[in-house]
Amino acid sequence: MAKMITGMNEDYSKWYIDIVTNAELADYSPVKGCMVIRPNGYALWENIQRILDGMFKETGHRNAYFPLLIPESFMRREAEHVEGFAPECAVVTHGGGKKLEENLYIRPTSETIIWSMYSKWINSYRDLPLLINQWANVLRWEMRTRLFLRTTEFLWQEGHTAHAEAGEAEEEAVRMIDIYREFCEKYLALPVLKGKKTDKEKFAGAVHTYTIEAMMQDRKALQAGTSHNLGQNFARAFNVTFLDRNGERKLVWATSWGVSTRLIGALIMAHSDDNGLVVPPKIAHIDCVIIPIWKKEEDRVKVLEFSSNLYSELKNRKVNAVYDDADQYKPGWKFAQYEMLGVPLRIEIGPREVEQEKVVIVRRDNREKTACSLDRVHEAILEISERMQRELYEKAKNMMESNTSETDNLQGLENNMEKGGFFKINWCGKKSCEDYFQDRMKATIRLIDSECTTRRCIVCGDPSSHTVIVSRSY
Amino acid sequence: MAKMITGMNEDYSKWYIDIVTNAELADYSPVKGCMVIRPNGYALWENIQRILDGMFKETGHRNAYFPLLIPESFMRREAEHVEGFAPECAVVTHGGGKKLEENLYIRPTSETIIWSMYSKWINSYRDLPLLINQWANVLRWEMRTRLFLRTTEFLWQEGHTAHAEAGEAEEEAVRMIDIYREFCEKYLALPVLKGKKTDKEKFAGAVHTYTIEAMMQDRKALQAGTSHNLGQNFARAFNVTFLDRNGERKLVWATSWGVSTRLIGALIMAHSDDNGLVVPPKIAHIDCVIIPIWKKEEDRVKVLEFSSNLYSELKNRKVNAVYDDADQYKPGWKFAQYEMLGVPLRIEIGPREVEQEKVVIVRRDNREKTACSLDRVHEAILEISERMQRELYEKAKNMMESNTSETDNLQGLENNMEKGGFFKINWCGKKSCEDYFQDRMKATIRLIDSECTTRRCIVCGDPSSHTVIVSRSY
Repeated sequence: MAKMITGMNEDYSKWYIDIVTNAELADYSPVKGCMVIRPNGYALWENIQRILDGMFKETGHRNAYFPLLIPESFMRREAEHVEGFAPECAVVTHGGGKKLEENLYIRPTSETIIWSMYSKWINSYRDLPLLINQWANVLRWEMRTRLFLRTTEFLWQEGHTAHAEAGEAEEEAVRMIDIYREFCEKYLALPVLKGKKTDKEKFAGAVHTYTIEAMMQDRKALQAGTSHNLGQNFARAFNVTFLDRNGERKLVWATSWGVSTRLIGALIMAHSDDNGLVVPPKIAHIDCVIIPIWKKEEDRVKVLEFSSNLYSELKNRKVNAVYDDADQYKPGWKFAQYEMLGVPLRIEIGPREVEQEKVVIVRRDNREKTACSLDRVHEAILEISERMQRELYEKAKNMMESNTSETDNLQGLENNMEKGGFFKINWCGKKSCEDYFQDRMKATIRLIDSECTTRRCIVCGDPSSHTVIVSRSY
Repeated sequence: MAKMITGMNEDYSKWYIDIVTNAELADYSPVKGCMVIRPNGYALWENIQRILDGMFKETGHRNAYFPLLIPESFMRREAEHVEGFAPECAVVTHGGGKKLEENLYIRPTSETIIWSMYSKWINSYRDLPLLINQWANVLRWEMRTRLFLRTTEFLWQEGHTAHAEAGEAEEEAVRMIDIYREFCEKYLALPVLKGKKTDKEKFAGAVHTYTIEAMMQDRKALQAGTSHNLGQNFARAFNVTFLDRNGERKLVWATSWGVSTRLIGALIMAHSDDNGLVVPPKIAHIDCVIIPIWKKEEDRVKVLEFSSNLYSELKNRKVNAVYDDADQYKPGWKFAQYEMLGVPLRIEIGPREVEQEKVVIVRRDNREKTACSLDRVHEAILEISERMQRELYEKAKNMMESNTSETDNLQGLENNMEKGGFFKINWCGKKSCEDYFQDRMKATIRLIDSECTTRRCIVCGDPSSHTVIVSRSY
């Protein structure tokens, strides 16, 4: 039998880690808080990268690479930024056998080093907009870590753009959060809510931050991507100006935006079950596994031949198929193994299938079986994959919607927070009321859903300025 | 006019840096020794990555990601390894606002952290071979740096494989150096010599190291890639054993191999000229630039229309074309600009071309012009690109061969070293004789070309054990 997974309802946290380790997606490393992304996990990241990178390039962005190390003095140039990030930094004090004259921080994010370069590269309106993205590793010292979701080192992309006009920067920030939303919904089958962060929760150094928030199966929120309108904060800190068309010198407007390997954690938590990983077909690195089944020795050769022919044909048609003809394991063991690994479709071929020139296709998520004649297998794989992709999204969307409720009763909110879900409430905008959620319910405002002035704050009863989503979160 | 480039014969070093900065391939960063790879340079790296990654996967390797930080104690487990690398490491002593219990090194290479994981993952012969590659940044503190060629931080890939048999590891080490050679010759149009390093020059921790060495236009050698047979050194240091088919516990055999962003430096130095960058078509991220040319206003519309139609058609046929119809620059300025940037082909379209329904295609490297009718443009681009790719390789190969000489005269070798080139000589194998080249000629043994026992060492006159290539190098 394949390795055991703790039941999701028994211990959600343990269930998650069991899937990550048994599906060989990631492993703990000897350095506290850092993870090793194993080939099965990295293959998911490669697909995420490939698709997002295409979306970035289609919208005019180009990739570049900036240094890992940032001088301490750079971090200090933007007041909010250093306050937010310096405490979580890893610090290099020695290099080449000597103590350094100035400490270097391993980047927790790259605004400061990038804007120091932009001050060199931007001089005229002709240099704008500057639309650059970087795929990189970053480090943020974390006390409590969890594979993929919160680790000291993680992989991500960070876009950093410079614009001539405030309005253009705002458009860019919205464009990128929309790209993240589209990517999550279309490829990860992950429905999200989009909105602004409160001032307390926004990026350190931003004017405002857009976020997309997804709901995991334990009904907690997970921040899946953020996009920041940085205003002129970093342009001011690094003196980045340009001559406009009228020869006037002006400060540049900025955005930054990022998603990380955390998306793999979101993907796992959103769709998987007690049998292991479930991956939406569009993001899976293997499309299907072919498993030959025979009991009598006389069936062996014909089942293997039939299976192997199908495998070759699918390969020719660009299907990423795996063919498992290993002798030492029984079909049942293999079924469990590939379910654990999250291969979207299983193709079963036994003596009866060979005789009738057909196969049985089994969906990973709901085990729905489809019998299909040999000449239609390729078509059927595409159809079933598409349906599976759509239904995974719909299932997750139903889950999110049926666990989102509106309330104006503070006691009811407190009582219900334990069981999870998104709560739509009214909030006056005061930090003291925002802190109340954290202090009393271990919950935070995930995003501002809309302006609202006709109702009252659920905490203090003052006139409400916003409708917000409150939830516990990862 | 485009920015000026120092002549190659005037000051080779300055010529190189002028190309890197004026073609906006890379820039100096505020952190000493670290570079910023700008979008034009990173696009070359993306193409290198894409092609090599495909070659690695075709030979059964999978990608993974291991932590950036390595505990100091891990580095110390392999004696030669720590001696070779520890002095060049950047050291993290503080994290999350506190002094760390154990110093962490930023990886200069990842053997130690990876083999600590392999000890967890490898247990049986069924787990072997384990064929993993990582794309990552690494840091080696350098005193004298040069953009792309030698920087404190650089990007690279590092393959790390584990095998049941010594012979398999040796085969793998050879397979990978051959992949590097194929890649350099086929895509970078860079001829290389392949051979073993001497013990002095091999990787710290390897049994032996294979290298490929290319000749730059100043006739110095550049090490373009290395592949190491690590024997059981790291398996022993990290106690990585497996049960073989007979139930016997044995130490694992290992290889590692890597190429880096240094290849971009090699590419630039091998083909470029006093007009700027020259990039072989197979590695260029832009295939051609279309430049419309008119003097009289009445020609303007028809030239632009013709050019724009061609641009659309080429785009449809998946040609990465750029169409530069900007008004503010003259065609001559644009010619110089795109020559600087290294775009392989220029398509000139003037009133005469429009009338005759043809175009003129100009090669970047030798400015050879080909007139071509409109209906044959796509075909011609493919043909000329292929010819240019082949001829760049042949030119570089001729250069290397005509600057490689055999000698058994030590004084002659010393006299000729200044003007550069590869010198094939006989060497007894003693380190003192090897040091002589360094001390007296600032040259090193780049590789062992072959065994040789019938001749005598050029330095000491003892019987020779090897024919080697001696050269100055980057």
